[in-house]
Amino acid sequence: MLMTNKYSSISFLSDYGTRDEFVGVVKSVIYEIAPHCRVIDLTHEIEPFDVRAGSLSLARAVSYVASGVVLAVVDPGVGSPRRAVAVEVADGKGVFVGPDNGLLAMAIALAGGAGRAVCLTNTDYHLDAPGETFAGRDIFGPVAAHLCNGVDLSELGEMIDPALLLPGVVPLPREEKGALHGEVTWVDRFGNCQLNVGPDEVADFGDVVRVEIGSLMSGASATREPVVRALKIVRSYDQIGSGIGLVIDSYGMLSLCVDRGSAATELQIGQGDLVVLSRSSDSAAQTNISITTAVKISPTR
Amino acid sequence: MLMTNKYSSISFLSDYGTRDEFVGVVKSVIYEIAPHCRVIDLTHEIEPFDVRAGSLSLARAVSYVASGVVLAVVDPGVGSPRRAVAVEVADGKGVFVGPDNGLLAMAIALAGGAGRAVCLTNTDYHLDAPGETFAGRDIFGPVAAHLCNGVDLSELGEMIDPALLLPGVVPLPREEKGALHGEVTWVDRFGNCQLNVGPDEVADFGDVVRVEIGSLMSGASATREPVVRALKIVRSYDQIGSGIGLVIDSYGMLSLCVDRGSAATELQIGQGDLVVLSRSSDSAAQTNISITTAVKISPTR
Amino acid sequence: MLMTNKYSSISFLSDYGTRDEFVGVVKSVIYEIAPHCRVIDLTHEIEPFDVRAGSLSLARAVSYVASGVVLAVVDPGVGSPRRAVAVEVADGKGVFVGPDNGLLAMAIALAGGAGRAVCLTNTDYHLDAPGETFAGRDIFGPVAAHLCNGVDLSELGEMIDPALLLPGVVPLPREEKGALHGEVTWVDRFGNCQLNVGPDEVADFGDVVRVEIGSLMSGASATREPVVRALKIVRSYDQIGSGIGLVIDSYGMLSLCVDRGSAATELQIGQGDLVVLSRSSDSAAQTNISITTAVKISPTR
Repeated sequence: MLMTNKYSSISFLSDYGTRDEFVGVVKSVIYEIAPHCRVIDLTHEIEPFDVRAGSLSLARAVSYVASGVVLAVVDPGVGSPRRAVAVEVADGKGVFVGPDNGLLAMAIALAGGAGRAVCLTNTDYHLDAPGETFAGRDIFGPVAAHLCNGVDLSELGEMIDPALLLPGVVPLPREEKGALHGEVTWVDRFGNCQLNVGPDEVADFGDVVRVEIGSLMSGASATREPVVRALKIVRSYDQIGSGIGLVIDSYGMLSLCVDRGSAATELQIGQGDLVVLSRSSDSAAQTNISITTAVKISPTR
Repeated sequence: MLMTNKYSSISFLSDYGTRDEFVGVVKSVIYEIAPHCRVIDLTHEIEPFDVRAGSLSLARAVSYVASGVVLAVVDPGVGSPRRAVAVEVADGKGVFVGPDNGLLAMAIALAGGAGRAVCLTNTDYHLDAPGETFAGRDIFGPVAAHLCNGVDLSELGEMIDPALLLPGVVPLPREEKGALHGEVTWVDRFGNCQLNVGPDEVADFGDVVRVEIGSLMSGASATREPVVRALKIVRSYDQIGSGIGLVIDSYGMLSLCVDRGSAATELQIGQGDLVVLSRSSDSAAQTNISITTAVKISPTR
Repeated sequence: MLMTNKYSSISFLSDYGTRDEFVGVVKSVIYEIAPHCRVIDLTHEIEPFDVRAGSLSLARAVSYVASGVVLAVVDPGVGSPRRAVAVEVADGKGVFVGPDNGLLAMAIALAGGAGRAVCLTNTDYHLDAPGETFAGRDIFGPVAAHLCNGVDLSELGEMIDPALLLPGVVPLPREEKGALHGEVTWVDRFGNCQLNVGPDEVADFGDVVRVEIGSLMSGASATREPVVRALKIVRSYDQIGSGIGLVIDSYGMLSLCVDRGSAATELQIGQGDLVVLSRSSDSAAQTNISITTAVKISPTR
């Protein structure tokens, strides 16, 4: 059968890091199979084994990734009976390849939901390997490359019901006594702390929102005074002035930010920490009323 | 109008880091608009918000970057009224795209100076975005890609007077009482400390140069004994022998170096620290006469 | 003479890091000379000056790298009289380019051994440079690109006897009193500790192997209680259960691993540390009998 190149790009996310040659080896394998194909690195610095952080990163990126193959590998269960899968979206305009451990779920949903899905059981499209602990090199990478070459999903193994793919854990905020209990879903390189709360969800609270941070930390034994602020919602870092700001970030979510500094360092918070938003008692008053911690806004060296 | 691909490469420098998916998303956006275009990463590990370090990195790289588009984003003022610009150099053989905050200035000067310049106000060439804090994805990246596709500078917004672009801060050494007061402009991965002083500028001092380090640190309250050495200028690390050497580096500048070790660690100095060079009183004598600090030349793990 | 493109890819490994623009500049130089050529980064995070770690990384990758040019630069002797070389393998299907300091030796051997070899003395194929400390940019990168363009090895300088290339130091395990003295050759991002011992070499010891770690550390003054375990050899991380496991890794070597955790952190060991394997006195008994250290399996933030 004559095959034509079907996809021209593979968008690649993993927790492999770049300190070792893992990513380079996967790309080498892909290049040998599908030399026409461009690999676009999303990131490889997902914390080791952090499926949730990987799924959130993929979800943030997905509306921007090129149509084609998305290869995502955060796979603490490599070699275990967890399934390896490929899942079509958008009538086959895109295919997600990775472990069936929830990593892909949010991104697939954002891309319109799963179409056909296959369990990657056909070893004809895998590499022979001396061990079973590097599925990126031996299974996922080769399969992604073969898909680019025009191999149909159905040839890669047993078709499965996409409804049975492991769902992701979407961190939704919850309402309690008129307040919105959100959490920090992402701390970026700059120390900006994205919340799982959009501006629409706090519209009722007015222009200035009461933000309580650290009242219940993700760490079980954490006990410390919560930081409480009344923050105006702004659209850029320079509108924050000094101290902490509540910014509509580039994904349209609310983020705790410091202008030219790190909110994560300033507030000593991280991924998963609770943030409670509510109506401010002094909504018309000045912002940043209760700055109780020292603000250092210079970047660390 | 029929457009032909005008540029085939985008050289990309930023402070986005690679821990998050920022760089991958910008590349995805570029790929969707200009799939023929190769993106060459210069570095994305400029310290957050450090416009000066970014401008120095770009200046070091500029005589080697491929002709085409240079995309540079170190942009602490993103979303503020700072201008986003594109600036032609070398009769349009190259175009710099980035914020007008001094980041591009030195590199543009080294590339022969600014030709036409435009303020990126035409949103037809931007991405719609839910927030204003990621101009690399929404403005600079798309514009760089459209330039590669053949869109003329004049279509991107209002043409501006290139003489009004924000100048960069070029760290020039100054003479004082027969000595040259330079500074460390760059500490590289290996701990080599590049100075803003070339060998010609110290030629009058003879073969062996007196080097005083740490007499006035960049940190305001720093007080410590300065380190004084008499150093011969050499052309490779193995000519240093033990201790600190003064090497003509790969950019033709003087660098404080340790053979197979880190001068920055050894001397406890960093970017911006003062280094005073002068005539040595014992110019014919042995080098490295006053080693007062312990030398550790093994790489750290 | 009409030249045709001979190689389409350069696989690139170095200790340049990605914090500086070194790698980007080398790629820019390559792109200007051989724009058709794809550069595949293996890794650039080899510890500065660590030729041995670089050679091991290259050896692990070599059976997967694309046929074509392999550019490897871990070069503490840059600018010294050490030779710069290019070495053909597999009847010219591949060429290794780098310093003749042992870095390339293991990979060349694994690729079938050296064919023709040349010392890169012809400066026609180098870049003019203001200093001699960046051979990747000025010598190795340009030569790699010219090879891709079809320049023959013999044009690059004086042909040399491949038998005279500096050999690498292959860390072989040794037998002593019925035990096998191996060492940790690699700690990967996840903390897995690869040994220079394959499963065949310990087959005589039975299913469960006695493993003694830390009895003689690479650090001279290290004194601590050795950790002794009886470990079953398994094929995936999830088969370890809790504590330390002995896994046949993706290269077919034995690795000390923790499921979803770091064996290196857990055992406080690193590259070069001694590991002694021998017959377990309780080979039929349960595994992990002597867990004496606290096990933390959560990934660090």
